[in-house]
Order: sequence, then C-alpha cells, then structure tokens
Amino acid sequence: MMISFDEALDLLLAHAPRLGIESCDLEMAVGRVLRQEVVADRAFPPFDRVMMDGYALRNSDLQTGDTFRITVSAPAGQAQVHLPESLRACAEVMTGAPLPRGADCIVPVEKTTRLSKDEIRVADDFKGEEGLFVHRYASDAKQGEVLLPCGVLIGSREIATAASCGVSTLRVSQRPRMTIIPTGDELVRVDEIPAAHQIRQSNGYALRSALQAAGYSATMADVLPDDADATALVAALASNDWLILTGAISKGARDFLPKMFEHLGCRKLFHGVAQRPGKPAGCWIGPEGQMIIALPGNPVSALTGLHAFVLPALAVASGRDLPVTRMVATEERIIGLPDMTWHLPVTLSADGRAMAAPTGNSGDVIGLLRSHGFIRLVPRDSLQFTYPYTPWL
Amino acid sequence: MMISFDEALDLLLAHAPRLGIESCDLEMAVGRVLRQEVVADRAFPPFDRVMMDGYALRNSDLQTGDTFRITVSAPAGQAQVHLPESLRACAEVMTGAPLPRGADCIVPVEKTTRLSKDEIRVADDFKGEEGLFVHRYASDAKQGEVLLPCGVLIGSREIATAASCGVSTLRVSQRPRMTIIPTGDELVRVDEIPAAHQIRQSNGYALRSALQAAGYSATMADVLPDDADATALVAALASNDWLILTGAISKGARDFLPKMFEHLGCRKLFHGVAQRPGKPAGCWIGPEGQMIIALPGNPVSALTGLHAFVLPALAVASGRDLPVTRMVATEERIIGLPDMTWHLPVTLSADGRAMAAPTGNSGDVIGLLRSHGFIRLVPRDSLQFTYPYTPWL
Repeated sequence: MMISFDEALDLLLAHAPRLGIESCDLEMAVGRVLRQEVVADRAFPPFDRVMMDGYALRNSDLQTGDTFRITVSAPAGQAQVHLPESLRACAEVMTGAPLPRGADCIVPVEKTTRLSKDEIRVADDFKGEEGLFVHRYASDAKQGEVLLPCGVLIGSREIATAASCGVSTLRVSQRPRMTIIPTGDELVRVDEIPAAHQIRQSNGYALRSALQAAGYSATMADVLPDDADATALVAALASNDWLILTGAISKGARDFLPKMFEHLGCRKLFHGVAQRPGKPAGCWIGPEGQMIIALPGNPVSALTGLHAFVLPALAVASGRDLPVTRMVATEERIIGLPDMTWHLPVTLSADGRAMAAPTGNSGDVIGLLRSHGFIRLVPRDSLQFTYPYTPWL
Repeated sequence: MMISFDEALDLLLAHAPRLGIESCDLEMAVGRVLRQEVVADRAFPPFDRVMMDGYALRNSDLQTGDTFRITVSAPAGQAQVHLPESLRACAEVMTGAPLPRGADCIVPVEKTTRLSKDEIRVADDFKGEEGLFVHRYASDAKQGEVLLPCGVLIGSREIATAASCGVSTLRVSQRPRMTIIPTGDELVRVDEIPAAHQIRQSNGYALRSALQAAGYSATMADVLPDDADATALVAALASNDWLILTGAISKGARDFLPKMFEHLGCRKLFHGVAQRPGKPAGCWIGPEGQMIIALPGNPVSALTGLHAFVLPALAVASGRDLPVTRMVATEERIIGLPDMTWHLPVTLSADGRAMAAPTGNSGDVIGLLRSHGFIRLVPRDSLQFTYPYTPWL
C-alpha cells in the first residue's frame, strides 16, 4: 500500500531512534551535534575591554585642553592599571587591554600626535564621548547565560564560543553505525571490466559520499546477489544501527528484499511511496530497532531518496531540529504531478531562481551533473509559488 | 597604504600558488578538487536497458491481440536474449536487463495478468509505444565524452560518475600544509582559568574548524607572545604552504608582525584593507612563496576575513573556479559605508531574504551566533539591490 511522501517522512522521523551521547574533543567537534548546553562561565567581555590601540583618558578632560600626559601604560595581557586623577592624565593602551580604572574614553593612536616621551596632543577633529571604543563588561553575555543550546550543529562560531567558555570537551551525538548494501546481479566492481550486459556498481559510492559530506560515515558491503540467503543481512543487522539498501525492492520476481526482511522478523513501516522518483522505497524496523531503508536501484532514485528522507531522519536521530529548508521560486511555472510528490532536479541561478533540469530518466546518473539540487512539488497543487530546495551533496 | 577589498581579493587570488596534484582513492575523494577529466569509457547506458519489471514485446503485436506467450526470460545481469519472431511472443524482463533483441516495448508487470505459467494478458488501458520504458543505448552519454571536467569539487554525483566509468583512483589537488598562529599576550589556553584581565584563545579554534568544514586541515600553533623572536615563525614557514595569523597586525606598539615579516624576507602584498570589520588585515609572500595571511585579533574580524578572502583564495589554489556566490535581497534598504566595503552579518529567512544582524562590535564573537552569514556591501553604493552572501561555516 502506497503512502504519501509526507507520511513516509513523518514515519521515518518518528521512528528514527535517538542516538546516544558521547564526549568529543573540542578540536574534533565541527560537524557534530551538540547534546549539552554551553553556559557563559564568566561575563563577556569579562572586563571593560579596550577596542583600539591609543590612549585612555577621561572624556570630561577633553573640555580643558588637547595635550595629555602619559602617566601609565596598559598593554593587553596585564592587570588593570589606574589612571591618576590629575587633570589630563592619560594611559597608553593596547587593543584587548582592560580599560584603566578612572578612564572612560579611548582616543585612537591615529587621532593623536606624540609631542614627547610622555605627552600627546589629541587631534582637533576628534570627538570624545564616554565609552568610546570601550567594549563594556558583560555587554555580549552575562555570566551563567546559555550561549549554545542542545541540538545545534557545531560550526566555527560554536567552537569559538565553547573555547571562550573553557569547554574543551563537548557532549555530542554518537554517530550511527551504518552500512550500505547494493543489490543487483548486473553490477560489477569498479575495478572490473563489465561484460556488455553489466554495469559497474555506483550507488554504494554515491550514497556513501553523500553521507560523508553530511558528516556521517558508512561502510559499503559487497553487492548482495539476487539469490542471496539471509547471512549477509543478519551480519549487517548485528553490527549496524542503520542499513541502507539499493535495489530488489520493487514488484519483480527477483525483488527479494521485502520477503527477506519479513523472514528476519523486521517490521514494515512502509513500502511504496507516492513520489517520483523512488516509488518502490520502503522502510523496515529491525529486531533490535535498526532502521532498514530500502531505496530503488535506479541511481537517481537512490540518491534522491537519500537526500529527501534518509538525511532528514539522520539529523533528527542526531538530536537536531529539522534544518530549515531553503525555499526557492522557479523561473517558469511548474505544475506538480497529479497524484505524487515530485523531486525535480533544478539548476539555481546566482539570484536563487530555480530552473527545471530533469534527468533523462531515473537511470541517468550522469544527467544529475546538470543540476544543483532538487525542489519538491506537492501533488496536484496549482498554488505553490516557492518550493523547498535540497542541494546535492 | 590601504587598498580596497576587491583589490585585496584580486591580489590574493592572483598570488595563491596553485597546489600540486596527487592520487586519491575514489572512496576518499569527496570534498576534493578534481584535476583530471573523467571520460565515459563506454556508452551510458551501455545497452538498451529495461526500465521496468514486466514483459518485453513488439509494440506492433499489441494491435493483434492482448494475450502473449512468455518464450524467454531476461533477468538483470545476464546476456541479451532473443525474442522469437512468432506473433505475440514476449520475454519476462527485470529492471536493469538488456532489452531482448527483437523487442521494442516494455509492459510493466502491473499492467498484465498472468494467465498461466507461460501466458499473460495485457490490460485494456495499457497504451504501448515503441521505446516505452526502454533506456536507450548511449542516450545519457556517448563513449569518449568528457563527463567530469578538471576543477570540479567532487561530490556524490561525481563519485557515482567516476565509479560508473571504472575510475577507482582520481587525480586531485593536494591539500595545502597550513598552520594557524594566534598572537596576543592576553590569551590563555582553553583549559586554563583566565585571570580577570585575560581571555581564552578562541580564534585558532574558530579558524581551524571553518577550514575543516571547508575540507582543509590545519594545525594550530601555540600563542605567539608579543615579545617573540622569529624562531616560531621560521619553523612555521619551513613546514607550511599557508600561514594564517591573528592579531599583532595593527598600528600599536605591540603589533610586531609586519616588522617581523620584513625581517624574514617576506614580500608585502598588501597591509590594510578598506573594509569593516578587518581593516588591519594584510598578506605577505614568504621566501619560498608561502602565503602569509595576517588577520586582526578581534574574533569577528578574523572569522570574517577567513570567509571573505582566505577560503576563496584556497579554492582557487586548489584549482577550482571561484564558486558562484549566492545573491540575496535584504528585507530593508541598507546603505553601504562611505569609504569601505562592509561585511555585514545577516539572518536569512526561509525564502532567502536577509536581515541585518550586526554584532555588538568586532570583539563580540557570541553575537555572531545570531546570524547565518554575511553580505558584502560595496562602498557608497546606493543602487545595490542584491548582495553576495557567504554563510558561516
């Protein structure tokens, strides 16, 4: 029984088992999903911070004259100094230093002339004001504030934030143990010379590299022959949380996978999705809760299926909120298919408009090179003006 | 002497030394830059390929009746079979099999009823046509056609294409040997408790993880103190193609890097860029042609500089064409700065409109968490309606 794409995706998201948590060195954490909060261990900045190389002084003194005596020096990396209370005293300061106590304004070095070893003149056109070029204590964050919530994908800014808070080990989602199992008796290895009626196995490579680009790693099993017994599948189930298979999932005599899943005690979540490409796709739950996703063997269907529902399901399993999908408009009006969701390859112009770039058919993996990603058209709709866009990885 | 952002970027792109070429296993090649052509070693598909499980027959026979005799079977992975010339003969076929010689049309199994072991009836509503569900020989690519040109970033589709052509080892760009050197006496290690006037080193982590997310790897050196002699820099130059430094590059008394570069025989490409943030940024060429990029120590300036010109320069050094930059419109009219390029952090709505999300100042790394990327505003322009957008990595 065929279900809609939305139903299939919802089922996958609901059943994808939440991955466990492990520790990860800060230096290795980019691309992982954070499973703890990162809290400001101190205020940011932790002191009134000088933002310009120059001179710190009292703004009110600028009313009394333009020459200042250098009484003290405040390099970055040294404890806060004190500006004497004498009229027109100033401190030589470096970017990053604590603002000297008693000063309230920084004059950048470019706005001064050094008159002698311990005297400067402030330029006529300098307009002082209280707090000028001072990065105020706690103005970015207060101590105890949650800076990074659970569930964020860790990028360079999150790494910088964690480093600033002294968090050198992060709690992140485990990576799923995953294997890809291609099927199809017409397939030979990449390093073999195929006979006239054979082709080289490419799905396993494509799916694995898309997973890799998305931050996951997967092993790739040997091609499962059409007359395989259950041995290889049993072994794969024993050592993986996710199995992704391609081929042998349709209605033909050799489409042995659905029966084999049943035989192994797997529970069918769905089989058959009202979508193009990839109608025969299905999902079963293994005896220990393993996710078994069976994609059609046609390479366009397999790669589209991976992007359209396997990657979202993996994101949710990793504890992420579903990434916000980019919406794009199309150059020309495109009408959806009458009764199924359509994952249509498109090129994107620099300004973000999509133009249809369909492949010859779902066997045409080379045709995918002409597109940047695909948009999703809901069935029958005539009021859709923008479409969710997924870039190829 | 300050130059414009465009001049600085052009200089970097022109001087970034083209990286060498190395071999890479197909399975490890995702994210690398291809430095060879991949050519179709045979036609794609290499035979008239059956696209549906069902029955292959002669379309013209459908005019003579709806019952067909199954005379032969053509599973995928076996050599082409021959359809007998007798009237209303058909072949049982599997997706992926070569079309039996003499047949020209596939009836999907769903459009048939099996009458007996060797007889089927074709459904009334089936409309045959020549070539139906046949993926024609060479319709995707001809033998000898260049499928992948030099200079493409290798993703899942490129991997699938190379696998299909039997290319199990690819020529790709070498990765640059790269190190990041933070400077600043106020910096302590992530695992240290900073004194009141100190902060933790975060720039090195941020830059390194952004590089990692972009597919490069870099080491991170210890913080270079303000009174450092040239030893560490000499060592870094000896073992790296690219040095990325943060801090000590401005006009203050402790900004020792420009002099040290000069002392080491490095050639200044530029120092000072009319941009916000990141005015003090500079680039020097080392004695052996090393790229030395000095970014300001303020974390917003450092991370912006990495995205705005280091990553594009690395892409070009890797043999890529400059990636097409996505253009975005803003929710509200934004006027550029009078005399400098402005890299302005923005959030993007799902439909791709940008809204300004500036940080408090260039020291506010936490403020960057509120944006998705930044747009580039040219100086003084009042006619810019869309802006090049760079997402944070």
